[in-house]
Amino acid sequence: MTTDNFSWLHRGVSDVFPNQPDSDSMDDNLEQLCTKSNRPLRVKLGIDPTGTDLHLGHSIPFRKLRAFQDQGHTAVVIIGDFTAQIGDPTGKDKVRKQLSPEQVKENAQTYLNQLRPILDFDTPGRLEIRYNSEWLSDLDLGKIQELLATMTVQQMLAKEGFNNRYTQETPIYLHEFLYPLMQGYDSVAVDADVELGGTDQKFNIAVGRDLQKYFGKKPQFGVLLPILIGTDGEQKMSKSLNNYVGLKEDALSMYSKLEKTPDSLLQNYFELLTDLSLTDIPENPREAQKMLAVEIVAQYHGKDAALTAQKTAMDLVKQQNMANAEAVPEFSLSSVEFPAKLFYILNASGLVNSSGEGRRQIQGGSVRLEGDRISDPNFTIENSQDLDNKILQVGKKKFIRLVK
Amino acid sequence: MTTDNFSWLHRGVSDVFPNQPDSDSMDDNLEQLCTKSNRPLRVKLGIDPTGTDLHLGHSIPFRKLRAFQDQGHTAVVIIGDFTAQIGDPTGKDKVRKQLSPEQVKENAQTYLNQLRPILDFDTPGRLEIRYNSEWLSDLDLGKIQELLATMTVQQMLAKEGFNNRYTQETPIYLHEFLYPLMQGYDSVAVDADVELGGTDQKFNIAVGRDLQKYFGKKPQFGVLLPILIGTDGEQKMSKSLNNYVGLKEDALSMYSKLEKTPDSLLQNYFELLTDLSLTDIPENPREAQKMLAVEIVAQYHGKDAALTAQKTAMDLVKQQNMANAEAVPEFSLSSVEFPAKLFYILNASGLVNSSGEGRRQIQGGSVRLEGDRISDPNFTIENSQDLDNKILQVGKKKFIRLVK
Repeated sequence: MTTDNFSWLHRGVSDVFPNQPDSDSMDDNLEQLCTKSNRPLRVKLGIDPTGTDLHLGHSIPFRKLRAFQDQGHTAVVIIGDFTAQIGDPTGKDKVRKQLSPEQVKENAQTYLNQLRPILDFDTPGRLEIRYNSEWLSDLDLGKIQELLATMTVQQMLAKEGFNNRYTQETPIYLHEFLYPLMQGYDSVAVDADVELGGTDQKFNIAVGRDLQKYFGKKPQFGVLLPILIGTDGEQKMSKSLNNYVGLKEDALSMYSKLEKTPDSLLQNYFELLTDLSLTDIPENPREAQKMLAVEIVAQYHGKDAALTAQKTAMDLVKQQNMANAEAVPEFSLSSVEFPAKLFYILNASGLVNSSGEGRRQIQGGSVRLEGDRISDPNFTIENSQDLDNKILQVGKKKFIRLVK
Repeated sequence: MTTDNFSWLHRGVSDVFPNQPDSDSMDDNLEQLCTKSNRPLRVKLGIDPTGTDLHLGHSIPFRKLRAFQDQGHTAVVIIGDFTAQIGDPTGKDKVRKQLSPEQVKENAQTYLNQLRPILDFDTPGRLEIRYNSEWLSDLDLGKIQELLATMTVQQMLAKEGFNNRYTQETPIYLHEFLYPLMQGYDSVAVDADVELGGTDQKFNIAVGRDLQKYFGKKPQFGVLLPILIGTDGEQKMSKSLNNYVGLKEDALSMYSKLEKTPDSLLQNYFELLTDLSLTDIPENPREAQKMLAVEIVAQYHGKDAALTAQKTAMDLVKQQNMANAEAVPEFSLSSVEFPAKLFYILNASGLVNSSGEGRRQIQGGSVRLEGDRISDPNFTIENSQDLDNKILQVGKKKFIRLVK
C-alpha cells in the first residue's frame, strides 16, 4: 500500500484539499496518509440513481476511484437512494423527481452495470456499495436540527450556486440547504477518508469534513476531478448537447466518435481517459486520434473488439469514398513528372493556387490522401501507379480523383 | 356561540389577520367565522416550558384565550416540549438550553399552575393541553424536507429578526429556520382555527397558515396582542429589568407595585389587564391606580385578599410616615386664617415660593396630603384641626408636618 510515486493520485486531478499541513488532520497531506496508513483507505464516491446513461465525462471520477482500488484501497460507492425516493418536494427540480424504491433499485443496477468495465468489482475488500437510506431514514428532527446547526445561512449563501441565485433573486427553497448536509452526513456514516467528485463538489465535500469533525471523526480529504469537455471541443460533455461518448455504446460507435477527437483535446483525453504515458502520444494527430480511440474502446470492449472497430471504420470510409467516387472530378497525372512532391500535385491539379499554398495546407493538416492525413510537406510519390484512382483532398470540401 | 358584539375579541388587540376577505378562507373574517361556526373554534397558544416565572406581560395572550373560552371556544395550549428537549444545538442560545423530559414536565406544570387564575380549566371542552413531541418526534427526514420546501431562503430572511442579523453579518444558524416551521406545523397538527401571540409572532403564525394550506387544511387566523410596558412606564415588562409584576407574587406585593402604575400607563393597563369598562376609570389618577391594583390583585388572589392588601399597604404608608415623623420639620398653622386654600398654606409654609406656584404644583399632581394626591387647585381646608399632625408634601423630597 506504500509507494513513493503518486502519479496515480495526481494524474488529471484539479485539486486535492487540504494540501497544506492541516491542524484537523493527523497527517500533513493525502500522500502521507496513503503512505502511513496501516489499513486500506475508504474512498467515497456518491451517485444519484436517477437512471442516467453514463458517458466518458462520468467515468473520470470512477477511473480515479479505480486507481485507489489498484493501490489496495476500498472504493465506497454511495447510492443516493434516500434522496431519490423523496424527490424534490417543490416539483421544480426535474433532475430530482420522486422515484419508487423499485425504480431506484433498477436505476442503481443500471448505473453499476455501466461501471463494471471501470471499477474492480472482483478483488475482495476493494468495493463497498452502500445505500444512504440505511442511515438517512433513521434521522429524526432532533438529529436533523443538530446537522443544520453546524452551518450558517451565510456559509450556505457563500456557495457559488446559491450565491448567484440569491443575487439574482431567484427563489432558493430551504430544503436545498439539506442536500450538502445529507451528502456530508454520508461521509460521517461510512467513515470516509477521501471523497472524490467533480470540481463542482468542493463545497459539499468540505461540508462532509465539517460534519465529520463535529461528530468527532477524522475529516476526509477531497480529490476534485475536472469536468470533461465534449467531442465538440467546446462544451462540457453531455447527452443533450450530443457531444458525448456513452459507456454503453458499441465499439464501432465509440471508435467512430473518438477517432475524430479534436486536436486541442487529445492531450486532455489521453490524460483523463487512459493510463498511457503522455510521452508516448504520437506527434501525428491522426495517429494520436487512432491510438486514443483504440485505447478507450479497449477499456470497454476489449482490445480485439477495438481493433476490429478500427478496421471496420476504415473500410466504411473507403466504401463511402467509393460511393462518392462518381461525383468527384478527375485529374490526369499524365503531365506530372515522377517522383513528384505532393505539394506540386496539389498545385498542378488546381486544388490550391500555388506550390507554396500546397506546402502550407499539408503542414496545417488539411490534406488527405485516400482519407489519410499527410502532414509531411516534403511527402513524395515515386510513380503515378501509387496514386491511381486515389482521392486527394484539401479541407472538407475540395476533392479530386487522381488517374494515371 | 354567536354574538353581535365582538368587543371581547377586539379589546386590546394589535392586529387580526387576515382581516380582508381572504381567498384562502371560506369566511370573510374572524367575526364571521365566530358567528357562523357550528362547532367551538380551536384557538391555539404555544408556550415554551423553560421554567419561566410568568408576569403580567405573559398574561395578555392568555387573557385573550380566556375570552375565547368564555365565548364557548376551545383553548388549545401547546407545550413546546420537543424543542425544549433538543435545546439549541449550537449552545449559543441561552433561552433554548437542553432540558430533560423530567425538567420539561416539571416546568410545564409550573407554567400551567400560574395560568390557573386566568384560564378556564374546569368547563368541559374548553381547554386542551398538548405536547408537541406528540407529532414532531414522528417527523422523518422526508417530511422535514417537505416542510422546508414550502419556504424560500428569501422569505425567511425577510423576517425582521433574521433580516437584521443578515444585514449586520451576525451568523444565522440553519436550524433557526426550523423554529417557525415547527411552530407552524403545530397548527397543522392541532387543526388550529386561530392562533394567538405577541406582535412578534406575526411571521410564525403566517408560516402556520401557509403550512395548513400546503397540507390541504383551512388556514388559521392570527390574533396579535401587544407587548406590555413594565411598571417603569418605559420598557417592555421583564424580570431582568425589575419592572414586572409576577403572577405568583402575593397580594400585598402585587398591590404595592400596581398602585404606583404610572399615569401614562393607566388606560393601557385597564384595557389589557382588566375587563372593566374603560368609561368607568376614575378621572383622579390616584383613584384609578387604586382601582386597577385592587382589580388585578383580585384576579389572582380574590377580591377580599385584594382589599386586605390595599388596607395593609395604606397602613404601611402611615406607619412609615410616622416613623419618618421625627425627621420632618414642623410648620405651625397658628398664623393661618381658616377656611384656607391649600395653595396658600404651601406658600406660607415655604414649600413653594408663591401662591401661583402652589396652584401649579397642585395641578401638576405633585402635592400630597398625608400621602393622598391633591389635584384640585382650589382645594380648601375648613379648620386647622383637619390638618393637625398631617404631612404636606411637594414632589418626593419636600415635606413638612402641619401642627395646630
